[in-house]
Amino acid sequence: MSFAASPECTWINGDEGASLSVMDRGFAFGDGVFETMRYRRDAIPLLEWHLRRLFDSCGRLRIAIEESLLRDEITQFHRAAAARLGDGIIKLIVTRGVSARGYRCETDAAPTRVLMQFPLPAETLSWNAEGVAIRYCDIRLGSNVALAGIKHLNRLEQVLARMEWSDSSIQEGLMTDARGRIVEGISSNLFLVIAGRMVTPVLDTCGVAGVMRQYILDEVCRGMSVPVAATACERGMLAGSQELFLCNAVAGVWPVRRLANKSWPIGPVTRKVQEHVARLFGA
Amino acid sequence: MSFAASPECTWINGDEGASLSVMDRGFAFGDGVFETMRYRRDAIPLLEWHLRRLFDSCGRLRIAIEESLLRDEITQFHRAAAARLGDGIIKLIVTRGVSARGYRCETDAAPTRVLMQFPLPAETLSWNAEGVAIRYCDIRLGSNVALAGIKHLNRLEQVLARMEWSDSSIQEGLMTDARGRIVEGISSNLFLVIAGRMVTPVLDTCGVAGVMRQYILDEVCRGMSVPVAATACERGMLAGSQELFLCNAVAGVWPVRRLANKSWPIGPVTRKVQEHVARLFGA
Repeated sequence: MSFAASPECTWINGDEGASLSVMDRGFAFGDGVFETMRYRRDAIPLLEWHLRRLFDSCGRLRIAIEESLLRDEITQFHRAAAARLGDGIIKLIVTRGVSARGYRCETDAAPTRVLMQFPLPAETLSWNAEGVAIRYCDIRLGSNVALAGIKHLNRLEQVLARMEWSDSSIQEGLMTDARGRIVEGISSNLFLVIAGRMVTPVLDTCGVAGVMRQYILDEVCRGMSVPVAATACERGMLAGSQELFLCNAVAGVWPVRRLANKSWPIGPVTRKVQEHVARLFGA
Repeated sequence: MSFAASPECTWINGDEGASLSVMDRGFAFGDGVFETMRYRRDAIPLLEWHLRRLFDSCGRLRIAIEESLLRDEITQFHRAAAARLGDGIIKLIVTRGVSARGYRCETDAAPTRVLMQFPLPAETLSWNAEGVAIRYCDIRLGSNVALAGIKHLNRLEQVLARMEWSDSSIQEGLMTDARGRIVEGISSNLFLVIAGRMVTPVLDTCGVAGVMRQYILDEVCRGMSVPVAATACERGMLAGSQELFLCNAVAGVWPVRRLANKSWPIGPVTRKVQEHVARLFGA
């Protein structure tokens, strides 16, 4: 595993640069949101889905981001990024901006916009083909309806979850809520295939409402004519499922091959979902 | 209310400067902790209490901060700060450091150390004398035993809580857990005086274990020979208490004068606690 520690390029509020104010509320409080988008040379295929979640999240957190300014900036950044590297990742961070010390914030603070370009990580793509082995994480997700679904910058639970193992034969961890119900992967969402239907954990009290999860719910399942539901997921449901897969907007779909002492083949529903998603990224 | 947007002085990893890498995990994930310390010209009175919490928190989050390096840096920073301004605030932030994109972190990442100097906010001190009016916040604190007590950088709940009101006659908000039990103020801890005993909410599933709270528990109550306990606090207990006060390491002790439709005088126990704390800061 290699670490590419620095982005290929970074813009902060439209200007090239890689440093930000120590008084930015993103740093002080995790007071912001982010999107991690996969791009092709000619487009960012799920851009509208990313922006819908971002603007919705900013609305819930009352971060007054200017939509047209951000759209223009992403378009320009993508053009410059694609000229350097034909496909890759654009990470977008929006914070409430710079303010004085303390939780209170002037209502006229200008949000901070950060755009970063990264290459596609090779191993996450190979996991598409081979599937992944996963584990249960010990740390639980705290519940808060005010924050549920938002891809915000308060991610200590995920950081601690990812520190629970270093065995490289395990690729992802499953996170549960305080009651032990399955919520999501550390950086992915989960789908189960049970008796020809698809199920994904409901995210009404915790978890990140992933863009790829939403795309699969709204578009892929409809295209495949497979019934799908977001419900509470107990551990027992996983053992009883014929297929499991994880998804996110960068990696697409990872078939789950192993969890605890249970194994799964890469099943036909998972393959079909992968085909739909592969078309998005022109792969 | 005036906002002093910038610190008087900032050191990052020992060097003067006010900007940090966009790849710092404090910014990406809130992956770090902080302390807000009040200093006099000759000392930082509660320094050992702050450091004990910080090192304990870093241990729980597995942030490998070098203790002697940090101690030396704080000593030097305090000396320089006191030369500029006889008393004030030193805010210390320690993050896991800079890493590649993604939750996983190299084990050898070097923590980032930020020291900032601010003047003492005038109004928080006047609240010592006059007391404060407070309100209940709507947003609840999520529970997570892995994070409970730590003054970490994941503070969106506090940010949203402080946005719930703009009425300047209300100075602080009380936060409750998912079950409605009182936990703390947004930036302070709570004590109740009931029938000559002191009570403070227990912080085993959420909340920040404040340094001033700990000092009052360990030193002030002993000095005053007042029995004290950390217990679960239902709302009804507040209505039945003879005195209420809030505390933090910067402001000291704020008597609570009003909450919802109940009023309190500034009582004798609160006054005694204030006298003990005032001696710390030489006020």
